[in-house]
Amino acid sequence: MSPSKMLEQEPWRLTASEALAMIRADELLVQEYAESLLQRIKARDSDVKAWAYLDEKRVIQEAKSLDKIPKKERGPLHGLPIAVKDVIYTRDMPTQFNSPLYEGHFPEMDAASVRILRHAGALIFGKTTTTEFAAIHIGPKTRNPHDLLRTPGGSSSGSGAAVADFQAPMALGTQTGGSMIRPASFNGVYGFKPTWNSVSREGQKIYALTYDTLGWYARCVDDIVLLANLFALQDDEDDKPNFQGIEGARFAICKTSVWPFAGPGTQEALSRATDILKSRGAFVEEIELPSEFDNLPEWYRIVLHSEGRTSFLPEYRVGRDQIGRVLVEHVENKDKFTRKTQLEAFDKMAALRPVFDEIASKFAAVITPSVPDEAPVGLESTGSHIFCSMWSGLHTPVLNVPGFKGDHDMPIGLSLVAPRYRDRHLLEVGKAVGEVFEAEGGWETKL
Amino acid sequence: MSPSKMLEQEPWRLTASEALAMIRADELLVQEYAESLLQRIKARDSDVKAWAYLDEKRVIQEAKSLDKIPKKERGPLHGLPIAVKDVIYTRDMPTQFNSPLYEGHFPEMDAASVRILRHAGALIFGKTTTTEFAAIHIGPKTRNPHDLLRTPGGSSSGSGAAVADFQAPMALGTQTGGSMIRPASFNGVYGFKPTWNSVSREGQKIYALTYDTLGWYARCVDDIVLLANLFALQDDEDDKPNFQGIEGARFAICKTSVWPFAGPGTQEALSRATDILKSRGAFVEEIELPSEFDNLPEWYRIVLHSEGRTSFLPEYRVGRDQIGRVLVEHVENKDKFTRKTQLEAFDKMAALRPVFDEIASKFAAVITPSVPDEAPVGLESTGSHIFCSMWSGLHTPVLNVPGFKGDHDMPIGLSLVAPRYRDRHLLEVGKAVGEVFEAEGGWETKL
Repeated sequence: MSPSKMLEQEPWRLTASEALAMIRADELLVQEYAESLLQRIKARDSDVKAWAYLDEKRVIQEAKSLDKIPKKERGPLHGLPIAVKDVIYTRDMPTQFNSPLYEGHFPEMDAASVRILRHAGALIFGKTTTTEFAAIHIGPKTRNPHDLLRTPGGSSSGSGAAVADFQAPMALGTQTGGSMIRPASFNGVYGFKPTWNSVSREGQKIYALTYDTLGWYARCVDDIVLLANLFALQDDEDDKPNFQGIEGARFAICKTSVWPFAGPGTQEALSRATDILKSRGAFVEEIELPSEFDNLPEWYRIVLHSEGRTSFLPEYRVGRDQIGRVLVEHVENKDKFTRKTQLEAFDKMAALRPVFDEIASKFAAVITPSVPDEAPVGLESTGSHIFCSMWSGLHTPVLNVPGFKGDHDMPIGLSLVAPRYRDRHLLEVGKAVGEVFEAEGGWETKL
Repeated sequence: MSPSKMLEQEPWRLTASEALAMIRADELLVQEYAESLLQRIKARDSDVKAWAYLDEKRVIQEAKSLDKIPKKERGPLHGLPIAVKDVIYTRDMPTQFNSPLYEGHFPEMDAASVRILRHAGALIFGKTTTTEFAAIHIGPKTRNPHDLLRTPGGSSSGSGAAVADFQAPMALGTQTGGSMIRPASFNGVYGFKPTWNSVSREGQKIYALTYDTLGWYARCVDDIVLLANLFALQDDEDDKPNFQGIEGARFAICKTSVWPFAGPGTQEALSRATDILKSRGAFVEEIELPSEFDNLPEWYRIVLHSEGRTSFLPEYRVGRDQIGRVLVEHVENKDKFTRKTQLEAFDKMAALRPVFDEIASKFAAVITPSVPDEAPVGLESTGSHIFCSMWSGLHTPVLNVPGFKGDHDMPIGLSLVAPRYRDRHLLEVGKAVGEVFEAEGGWETKL
């Protein structure tokens, strides 16, 4: 976008990259930017309710301090406002996990991710809503900004909604099952879950160590790349020069064994995506994963519940009556999973990781549903993670790319998946694919 | 021990189980017990230096509060003093990781383990020394209580030394490579590393997610079992009735591919252990793991360094000059490990886990060295983890059993290893084995 066009619009409309460029060029003060976002929030918050904690005064104070920092001493993300999911520790705000057990919990420390962001000059803006411990499917107060009767998804509900609604240019979320990708799809934004353990998860509530991953939301891939740089995501050098644009690239369409869960919106999105890519000269083929992969959803579930058994023991002991039923059931092993069952699932899932990497390495990306369909009506349930959880289990990077829509004009995204530690490659492909999906997919934000 | 005999000795000499029994029987106040331990510490601290933080007033205050709790409301570990390694968060004490970057760091929150312990009535006593972030091999100030010129091992240096020196009946430690087992061996105490992820690691500094494990020290296996109960460690039911005592049981001696690192003390301990068990009617056979296992130490190292690359990025960014050289090298990937190398090590190690479980399931326990030899002279290095790291990679439970000694009369322990999630079984076996090793192994504490 040209600087003149940028100046025509409210700062809150800017993407992170645009805003940073303007701040760097002295065309925008951090304080002005922050005030503009706060204005947007003021206008929208009673509808969308994306925030678990937001202290306007503190935001302005921080923004002013940032503006005072001499140019030479500024970090690479100087002045970038970031919303933080309320399962991630922040030293200057409470961290409450949407749990009555943690009301007012305020340990005054930064998660690893927040520390890195703050050091780079980011403005830690406020805390966004989550389902309880990012572990259950009962929605928080947050509504989908595109239709207030619908869920924004979860568990990163507030982060997805805030970015979609222009209340923050970027937000941190977390994913154990589909908590990054589902809200991205439901809110029509980019959501990126990097390779497992490529970004420190220190200072986030643990649900399942084997899956939990920090990720981030933005309204364009360039913004995602800002954080990929900051968090030092790095592919192998020799893997680099693979993607030369959509024309001539090979894409795999992977419906997976849970395809029967795909509703008309997702079916249509996947078929439209195929047509768009083909029309741009890509080779698109449908692939079927080896039958062993059909077990992944169940293996995923077994390991999830078993690891939750360990993770929620403290809360169970301290306040059994104040935690969600499903967490009590994890700790009590209501499924009666044996250790044998647990280990088999754990080991067999591990064995499939290199198998998938090998398959996916033959393509620019594997394209697969993000969700069964557009965001459902109601806030009681944040929707299904059925299409996301297997990639959480496989540790692959996943990028939700928006652009499509469902029967009620709500956004639908698709997941682009790559082998582990091909995060940079995936973002490169995602940028090109996102441009065409957004241009031709049929959905556009009205916000 | 009979109550009359218990009363003859100073309370600080009691094991956890003995002390709990006396507190329960109104034969000992928590305050008396705490005061006795503080006396012991006062007498010994200038020599051993096991503590990173200890506030005597707070300890006495807590002890008094515990004594005031009505009997009906007391938890299962009411009044049990526990020392906590200073990489584990405690809401009422600083947590400083032996890092200048975290001097005075005091986020006022409890790690999952501490929360569970506190809720059960334990008296969180103080913080014990660690190497920097439990990640390097340069020792803290702590000395081996059996010979002040020697290292107590690391990284759980203070926890191992405090328990051996009767300054605390039990202590929490952590292990990424050999940080639980090595200090246990060097100090002549029991050290237990449960199955990976069977106990929540929430609220401990992360080094390598794939290995980091909370464990605990005690002077007898019964005390270890107290915490195994508290943390709800549970084997499968059908695996239970395997061990009927040493007579007739099968043991494997596994020297492993790193056996050339074993010095005379460890060689002698292993051969003596074999003789003792045989003399008690056990079947003891030496096993050799399939050749693929020879790669484990190197795979372990690759994954360790690669995960450290992620974990220490925040500290690297914020204070590169204030963290250990080895951590800088992790972040900068000085080894130049490619992602391909990293993933191969990660996946192949994962593939060996069920293979080892299957092998080990044929025995009451696999017996293997804990360390190359007795604790070396000097505090600069906490010693080698070469015999421990592969079990960290395989996620198995490991129990260090003391009883043997080296050329300088320093303690040497051996590791008992079982398949994953056979923790309870391992403790059962360890109790029987520990009794005979302690009786006939040749080492006895002079403290």
